Amino acid sequence: MRKASSYNRMFRKILIANRGEIALRVIRACREMGIRSVIAHSEADRDSLPVRMADERICIGPGASSKSYLNIPNIISAAFISNAEAIHPGYGFLSENTSFAEICNDVKITFIGPSASVMSVMGDKVSARKAMAEAGLPMLPGTPVVRTLPEAKEAAREIGFPLMLKAVAGGGGRGIRLIQQPEEFDRIFTIAQNEVREAFRDDGIYFERYLARARHIEIQVLVDQYGHGVHLGERNCSCQRRNQKVLEESPSPHLSPELRQEIGTKAIRAVQQVGYRNAGTLEFLLDEQDRYYFMEMNTRLQVEHPVTELVTSVDLVKEQIRIAAGLPMQLQQEDIQFRGHAIECRITAEDASADFRPQTGTVERYLPPGGPGVRVDSHLFAGYEVPPHYDSLLSKLVVWAETRNEAIARMQRALDEYVIEGLETTIPFHQRLLSHEGFIRGETYTRFLQDEAEALGI
Amino acid sequence: MRKASSYNRMFRKILIANRGEIALRVIRACREMGIRSVIAHSEADRDSLPVRMADERICIGPGASSKSYLNIPNIISAAFISNAEAIHPGYGFLSENTSFAEICNDVKITFIGPSASVMSVMGDKVSARKAMAEAGLPMLPGTPVVRTLPEAKEAAREIGFPLMLKAVAGGGGRGIRLIQQPEEFDRIFTIAQNEVREAFRDDGIYFERYLARARHIEIQVLVDQYGHGVHLGERNCSCQRRNQKVLEESPSPHLSPELRQEIGTKAIRAVQQVGYRNAGTLEFLLDEQDRYYFMEMNTRLQVEHPVTELVTSVDLVKEQIRIAAGLPMQLQQEDIQFRGHAIECRITAEDASADFRPQTGTVERYLPPGGPGVRVDSHLFAGYEVPPHYDSLLSKLVVWAETRNEAIARMQRALDEYVIEGLETTIPFHQRLLSHEGFIRGETYTRFLQDEAEALGI
Repeated sequence: MRKASSYNRMFRKILIANRGEIALRVIRACREMGIRSVIAHSEADRDSLPVRMADERICIGPGASSKSYLNIPNIISAAFISNAEAIHPGYGFLSENTSFAEICNDVKITFIGPSASVMSVMGDKVSARKAMAEAGLPMLPGTPVVRTLPEAKEAAREIGFPLMLKAVAGGGGRGIRLIQQPEEFDRIFTIAQNEVREAFRDDGIYFERYLARARHIEIQVLVDQYGHGVHLGERNCSCQRRNQKVLEESPSPHLSPELRQEIGTKAIRAVQQVGYRNAGTLEFLLDEQDRYYFMEMNTRLQVEHPVTELVTSVDLVKEQIRIAAGLPMQLQQEDIQFRGHAIECRITAEDASADFRPQTGTVERYLPPGGPGVRVDSHLFAGYEVPPHYDSLLSKLVVWAETRNEAIARMQRALDEYVIEGLETTIPFHQRLLSHEGFIRGETYTRFLQDEAEALGI
Repeated sequence: MRKASSYNRMFRKILIANRGEIALRVIRACREMGIRSVIAHSEADRDSLPVRMADERICIGPGASSKSYLNIPNIISAAFISNAEAIHPGYGFLSENTSFAEICNDVKITFIGPSASVMSVMGDKVSARKAMAEAGLPMLPGTPVVRTLPEAKEAAREIGFPLMLKAVAGGGGRGIRLIQQPEEFDRIFTIAQNEVREAFRDDGIYFERYLARARHIEIQVLVDQYGHGVHLGERNCSCQRRNQKVLEESPSPHLSPELRQEIGTKAIRAVQQVGYRNAGTLEFLLDEQDRYYFMEMNTRLQVEHPVTELVTSVDLVKEQIRIAAGLPMQLQQEDIQFRGHAIECRITAEDASADFRPQTGTVERYLPPGGPGVRVDSHLFAGYEVPPHYDSLLSKLVVWAETRNEAIARMQRALDEYVIEGLETTIPFHQRLLSHEGFIRGETYTRFLQDEAEALGI
């Protein structure tokens, strides 16, 4: 039903409002599509690789994120000055900021992502749960939002212990606490609410039933401006530390093709029903009886998107850009074929043996692994000084192989090859994780790292 | 018909009788298969990356190839000393040396390749042509072997001008000359025969009809010890300089699926008929009317094998090792699916603007490209001193994308990213080649580089 006349023309220039490996990822996509790239960068990132690689560069403020990568007026000005027609927000920073998406819309710059209104619904965890429940997704038993201790105690009683405390405004693993028993409830609730108020300026809290050995499964979706959508299967992100993902893979071990199909189909229908557009991810918990529950949606590109790219051969960033430009998506669900197995290790500047303490310093020697089935998304180079202001992600090491066991062997080999000297990284931790028997058997769950901390040397 | 009892056990240790990127390629495969690797290296390669990465290392002689990588007694001794059960010869050096394969056989070390007897038939171009003609492959009109000028003139008269002069013992692009007209025949024949006698200790020459705008197409085959074989489609290697390939791709532009199927099927049947085992490549010329003619067979892994790996997802080195160990190949022809498009650029230490003069020097800065669809097979690192003794190949940059146009765009972006400082490389040449209109249209033929030399700045 889409006519040729509805095809918008492709952007000539895109501004990237991000840094590090994801800025590089978007620059690479732009270059391959013949689109000029402009990077909006902080002073601290002046000598970074994405700044060198972009076609144009504009400094938007000092190192602190609040003054640069979160500085909406400066970013919008940079887009105007450079005549960029669209902004790619990457992940983190302004990627899920509704006001930013709205402002872009007001000033006629295309925000590469969903509309501000649907982002607003899906960005609030409570309204997202409501919308997705109405759209037919199963939910973990949860409570309404509470803001006071008496309300909270009342709500918790309904769910029973253990339970998960979640901040309405949380995200990226923040604002989530496990409460094991009634005795610790008051203390943890009070601490958590204070933290949440500080971090998100919204102290709304809700509770969900806690699943003991649940897997984190997420479904990648793509929907074009005409409502045509596909799902690209799942990623298993059960290897988490403090609710932060450290390793992701696709497909999920022990997930049947039927269940993949069922969750994927429900997910794409649900997002189509709420009018979602562009790339997005629906996160689910999967219990030991293969029951699944919607947790939240990420209305942006995710760090771990490459594992999906490797098993489906779909370039998610290019699709995001084409969708934002108004092109009808050519992919049909039956075109999406899943082949082989992909694993991503997040290599961060952290000392895993010292409670993952963030490291700064200069990369003295650098040599990424190569050869068959290895993809490296990283902004590192020899001489790069890791700035103290930002997320500690240094590199995403991603491998593909025909089977999961071969992918594990390949990742072990690639980790062994990877040379990053000058600061501590999580490479040794990943080497231990990849040779852990439980991991090799695919028996990971969201508290796997915590339960196996000793074996993993963390 | 293969029984479980016929499964041999996998090797515990393999010796690699090669250097540079291909040694690294084999080490990587060994590591992923849980096989220990031993590198037999020259003194000049003592600090090289494959020597660092192998599990064990044995020096087999000084820098000059004749004293190390071609030194059969030392290599065999190294295999004995290290208890290696098999030898991977890579390409070049001893990979097509019949005596070496025979000696390995005699001393009960597995040579990872075909049997010495079939290698002997297929390594001699005249006997290979005879065997393949009998096995049903079409041949370019050619002459018997000649050794004297009068014989040669007589033979040339039968074929007519222009014609190709070929050394019986030639290979890797050496010992091949185009003779355009009768006037230059005596001179070129005499020079060529002298060179051939010098290089190969065999002055046998034959002539073939010359095809004006022929494409170089080659079919990759794999056959296990039980005669079960598959073909893995074709590579187009028409971008050649002095009969040396500089860029390869798969699939070949403008080759119909029917023709691919026909050539592939004929090729695999022909090699099965002569009892060929392990990986091999049949080279064909394809004329403008889509007629194809067998040229020669390479009885070893080829430099350009990664393009086939990227479009078929088959790991050719692992298959070679499994076949050599006596495992029945699990692949069936119908399993081989061709997906997308792959291109390889051979980055060499040569100055393309100065007649590809070889360069030596130290790599001062090194940063390979990354991101989606990029594979780098290279032994380079910052600080590596390129030794003067060997082939000038520094790196194979290989990309995959859904379509040829996307693969070209990706290769352009990857070439732009690639940092190799300290010596001249062919990166600028490849940048010009990748943006040449004729190349972009897929209209390459074996003399394309020569005809377009000016446009390509060579």
